[in-house]
Amino acid sequence: MSARTADWTTERVARFSLAHVVEPGDPRMWRAVATLGVEAAWSALRSPGSDSRWRQRAAVFDPEAAIRLTERSGARFVIPGDPEWPEQLDALACCEPVQERMGVPVGLWVRGAAMLSDVARASVAMVGSRASTSYGEHVALDLAHNLVREQIPIISGAAYGIDAAAHRGALAVGEIGGDAVTAAVLACGVDQIYPSAHANLYEAIAARGVLVSELPPGEHPTRLRFLTRNRLIAALSRATIIVEAAYRSGARNTVTWAAACGRPVMAVPGSVTSGLSTTPNRLIRDHEAELVSSTEDILALLSPVGQDTLIGHEEPATTVDRLGETELLVLEAMPGRGTLGLDELSIRAALPVPRCLVELEELAAKGLVREREAGLWQLTRRHLDQR
Amino acid sequence: MSARTADWTTERVARFSLAHVVEPGDPRMWRAVATLGVEAAWSALRSPGSDSRWRQRAAVFDPEAAIRLTERSGARFVIPGDPEWPEQLDALACCEPVQERMGVPVGLWVRGAAMLSDVARASVAMVGSRASTSYGEHVALDLAHNLVREQIPIISGAAYGIDAAAHRGALAVGEIGGDAVTAAVLACGVDQIYPSAHANLYEAIAARGVLVSELPPGEHPTRLRFLTRNRLIAALSRATIIVEAAYRSGARNTVTWAAACGRPVMAVPGSVTSGLSTTPNRLIRDHEAELVSSTEDILALLSPVGQDTLIGHEEPATTVDRLGETELLVLEAMPGRGTLGLDELSIRAALPVPRCLVELEELAAKGLVREREAGLWQLTRRHLDQR
Repeated sequence: MSARTADWTTERVARFSLAHVVEPGDPRMWRAVATLGVEAAWSALRSPGSDSRWRQRAAVFDPEAAIRLTERSGARFVIPGDPEWPEQLDALACCEPVQERMGVPVGLWVRGAAMLSDVARASVAMVGSRASTSYGEHVALDLAHNLVREQIPIISGAAYGIDAAAHRGALAVGEIGGDAVTAAVLACGVDQIYPSAHANLYEAIAARGVLVSELPPGEHPTRLRFLTRNRLIAALSRATIIVEAAYRSGARNTVTWAAACGRPVMAVPGSVTSGLSTTPNRLIRDHEAELVSSTEDILALLSPVGQDTLIGHEEPATTVDRLGETELLVLEAMPGRGTLGLDELSIRAALPVPRCLVELEELAAKGLVREREAGLWQLTRRHLDQR
Repeated sequence: MSARTADWTTERVARFSLAHVVEPGDPRMWRAVATLGVEAAWSALRSPGSDSRWRQRAAVFDPEAAIRLTERSGARFVIPGDPEWPEQLDALACCEPVQERMGVPVGLWVRGAAMLSDVARASVAMVGSRASTSYGEHVALDLAHNLVREQIPIISGAAYGIDAAAHRGALAVGEIGGDAVTAAVLACGVDQIYPSAHANLYEAIAARGVLVSELPPGEHPTRLRFLTRNRLIAALSRATIIVEAAYRSGARNTVTWAAACGRPVMAVPGSVTSGLSTTPNRLIRDHEAELVSSTEDILALLSPVGQDTLIGHEEPATTVDRLGETELLVLEAMPGRGTLGLDELSIRAALPVPRCLVELEELAAKGLVREREAGLWQLTRRHLDQR
């Protein structure tokens, strides 16, 4: 057993065994665990009279072999009450089922240099399509990078596309980010590499973050396991950000879990002509997600004081914007081309001649008009540029 | 005078004169008109004791020459009570000032084959940047075209960029659209072409819609006039759609007017990396506009019954989505590569052997698995494609 896994109490053994025998997120088993506790639930499952569909798997389960496999995998098995256990997962205890999956995991396999609880505490999840565009990858990378610089780790699923871009953006932050920059929550054992092309990414995540799974080492991903895994991504983080996703997407399922856990959902909009912005745009349209365009937008939504962080992001006004009302009236009474005399200007602007002269001199000082010859005024190029 | 302008009653002459002498949207004059009526307001303005800033302009106003100019321009001067008057402009009577502009116009110059009231009744406004991208122009053209096919005329401002794309999309609808497809509301006289490159567009709009202005023929656009004109675009239409606009944009001002008139505001999202989607994305973010991606989205927001028109737009499910729960369990217990025997499958799926066999046969009938040799099953390519 890894040095970081605590003693094998009977509770830990029961959780470890249940995590091997029962498919994660099984509603019936979760209800048994919540009602009886893990030890009684594990005993009941193995009892001769059990009608559980997991009974046969429990009968062939070999705990000694399983412990050896976990040890070889370099993972630690973390359970509620351990310092590394992320308490925000408790939100799953009172969460309605999504696609008949539910429940707090009985335990988690964790592999990597960071403490899962450290990574998860202030984190946000970033999810999206595997078949992403360069736009989506650019935005995911950039937002993840800036969030980690703000001490906000990134949770994702280590898949192709948006997931990989999010992890890479987090990992690209230098030493300032420390060793708790990102967590990959997997739908397979933490010793498996899926997709296999992500071997280097997995090792980089393990070096500066953690790989997490509720499936034992050696297990492979399935469609149901992806859907079940998504609830952990949503529950581990303070908010879920969806960057790009087509109409049909697993990322949509993660968003459903985030909403079920009461976590904010944010979405990056995109072109209405891009199929990969269909889901983010639709979530925003249906008020299921808040639109975010920038790190500032995300921080504002995470901050309890709301819009405060946005102060100072307004763009400066042009010279014309800062003009007084009568200055503007005089300026706008000037012809686009050619010159105008003071009397004619006074009628056009509906202001007395002396007032017009005062304003013309103000405007000339700002470089917007000039007196071309005695009493004949014209607009300057500078004004036309600002028009 | 154009044949379509009614008799020159004293009210019409007073409105015509005020429209020449007073800059549109002037709050003081609007309050005088609203309190005294147009005839008394016009008399008061011309009285020797008047302290109005417009008094000098009133003194040099030549109604006969002005009537001749309107006649030559081919425009008709339309006032409240005329059949062509668009009654929805009354919304401006109880609207707070925006940038110190306010009020129902005292009259409108209209040029073109359509009746302004016909164009305006069911219309939406489409506004955006002059310096638009091909994305914005494509979307504006496409949405405008489809809205006109749904009998919803388009109001815009005949400027470069989004305005022009919106008008062109409306005009591209064939005879089915009739002669009330679009209205251009101008910040200059309806005999002026601004920008001059839009001469053909102006004539096309006049042939199948109308050009509208509260400024007399011969008048040129100014910055203030654009801002004042925007309230007419917002008030004439049932909703305002903003397609592309940079941070600083006149389109933002039109949106402010639409909100002030209580009209819905809609925005087309875009890439967060495009400066021209800054304003639409920001309006959506701040819940000042509803996100629209399609004609269906717009129709749903215009429809009093809300989402009804969206029925039937959901995409079909794949074969895998339609599987029953136990079918899915069996499918997902199958290895990605190679074959699996029935006993092993029973343990993996945690289902009795006979049940597994029933489900395997169902799955085989759907083309998702096949029996490679006696008792050994494998996934088919079809399943892998849907994964």
